Amino acid sequence: MMPFRYENNQLCLLDQRLLPHEEKWIEQKNSHDLIESIKNMTVRGAPLIGFTGLFALAFWFKDQLKPTVDGYKEICQLIKSARPTAVNLMFEIDRIYPSILKKINSLSHMELYQEVMKDCFAQIDILNQKNTHMAHTGVDDLKKIYGSKKLNLMTHCNTGMLACGCTGTALGVISYAHDQNLVNHVWVDETRPYLQGSRLTAFELEKENIPFQVVVEGAAHYLMSQKKVDAIFVGADRIAANGDTANKVGTANLALIAHHYKIPFYVVAPLSSFDFSLKDGSAIHIELRDDKEILNYKEHRIASHKAQAFNPSFDITPGHLIHGIICEKGLITNPSIEKLKVWHV
Amino acid sequence: MMPFRYENNQLCLLDQRLLPHEEKWIEQKNSHDLIESIKNMTVRGAPLIGFTGLFALAFWFKDQLKPTVDGYKEICQLIKSARPTAVNLMFEIDRIYPSILKKINSLSHMELYQEVMKDCFAQIDILNQKNTHMAHTGVDDLKKIYGSKKLNLMTHCNTGMLACGCTGTALGVISYAHDQNLVNHVWVDETRPYLQGSRLTAFELEKENIPFQVVVEGAAHYLMSQKKVDAIFVGADRIAANGDTANKVGTANLALIAHHYKIPFYVVAPLSSFDFSLKDGSAIHIELRDDKEILNYKEHRIASHKAQAFNPSFDITPGHLIHGIICEKGLITNPSIEKLKVWHV
Repeated sequence: MMPFRYENNQLCLLDQRLLPHEEKWIEQKNSHDLIESIKNMTVRGAPLIGFTGLFALAFWFKDQLKPTVDGYKEICQLIKSARPTAVNLMFEIDRIYPSILKKINSLSHMELYQEVMKDCFAQIDILNQKNTHMAHTGVDDLKKIYGSKKLNLMTHCNTGMLACGCTGTALGVISYAHDQNLVNHVWVDETRPYLQGSRLTAFELEKENIPFQVVVEGAAHYLMSQKKVDAIFVGADRIAANGDTANKVGTANLALIAHHYKIPFYVVAPLSSFDFSLKDGSAIHIELRDDKEILNYKEHRIASHKAQAFNPSFDITPGHLIHGIICEKGLITNPSIEKLKVWHV
Repeated sequence: MMPFRYENNQLCLLDQRLLPHEEKWIEQKNSHDLIESIKNMTVRGAPLIGFTGLFALAFWFKDQLKPTVDGYKEICQLIKSARPTAVNLMFEIDRIYPSILKKINSLSHMELYQEVMKDCFAQIDILNQKNTHMAHTGVDDLKKIYGSKKLNLMTHCNTGMLACGCTGTALGVISYAHDQNLVNHVWVDETRPYLQGSRLTAFELEKENIPFQVVVEGAAHYLMSQKKVDAIFVGADRIAANGDTANKVGTANLALIAHHYKIPFYVVAPLSSFDFSLKDGSAIHIELRDDKEILNYKEHRIASHKAQAFNPSFDITPGHLIHGIICEKGLITNPSIEKLKVWHV
């Protein structure tokens, strides 16, 4: 399900905070609305946050009859500070900044608006092409292993359209496999503590009529030992030069159990998620988040008021546990520093 | 924390449904109250349910001026049907049934009341001795491996006093290790979907001033790969002749990750949990529970209303992944059918 709509110069965002219970579309009237929607989590998912930043910049030009260089610098700064840890937000604004700066005195404000909108949709299109290519790569490998057998696939967290603003990464593979009539069933990890699986991935699969059931993370060994899982697809936040992969906490559990039971475990992420300056995963900083995510459900306390929790948001899956890493350049199985080198340009 | 109090012929049960937020003691006035407390989950945990059944039988005699054999048969049946899947409840009532039947015409109803109460406390005492012995066995093995080093221990689900009515099994080891000044920190799996870890184990550790933090099941690989776990202790619902162990779903994930990182993983359970007629775990039936446990938090819906979940309540940990199984007869490391045979009498 696409998380935004743009028709007749009107931009609406799906309020992801209300999912899966309510599908509320919020019309974005100006740059301020869009910056707020980043801050207040109406939108989420690294790529979508980046694109929303570009929309915010475009809308600023629309309302700014005489945009100045100083004003432009200021709005770029303001957008980037909407969610300071969102790497894609910085990346998109920094990427577009110089080309627009050059044109700021030669184009009208509406031309600048069109220019940024066009750029944003071009970026979405590029990502969509990459992710579609990754989906095909993943499905090709499944076919190589399993032929045309209908498969039980498994995924963790949310890596679909809601996060990407276009075809997803890991969920993109699953969706395309379903299009190809290769999916029997999908196991959706609920993904504690933030429940991206039961709230968002389940919602997306439901929209696509892909058969699924939510499971707790604890059920992984049960499912895999009972041969109920044919392959696992996850996304990545960051991938080191040797294939060590940082992703939502719980990913590495799956990888290790899958490795033990010889079930293909795939990481699906665009090349922009790779950091070849890191020789392995040990240097990747693991964000520790508020322990209320574990101890509360919304405003309801689960544990006693004095209890504390430890809430690492990510984990590192050792590269040697990964069957294959898929990016827009293709698939590398049994990743190693030597093998992955070919993707480092 | 003991889940019942018996003073001056007055029996009170801790309402475990309200934990950890409220400690409410409910006076049990008669057999009906006690049967209700089993039915409505005021009490939980296999051993405690068994003992509560015996209390219910005793209280029936107290109120029954002229107990008859027919009435006795009827009340035994009624108690056993309070929770039909609770094996300990059947076991305790079936165990006491013939000896009381013999005395029903020769003793007064108050003597019969005293007789059943005495028997119940004797059973609690026997279990307490067994569990205390298991705790010592576990701590002895930790000392053999780690000397007097202060350890980071990990546990899953709830296996403490709240479940047992006396010293717990896995949590009994952790509690005794803490008494011996061997505990630095305890990692408590929140234990989805029913949250026995964050609700009950955390509550018990807090009461005993044992330092702990709750973690999501997904954090297991992170903690173990970062060398933050020295040993893991879990309980068991059923153990097959070769050491394959059925326990709360999520247990086998921990065992496999621990095995990979060479972290000692212990199963702690009385001999009554063993079933030597099962040559391995494949014959153990895995209960599938209501998927609302996963899709709802109390009355709040997490996933969309159409979403479904798959909710196996237990999993089977292969015996070869277990470092040691502890029962009242001692410890067997690297369990196998041959080694465990010595416990089969």
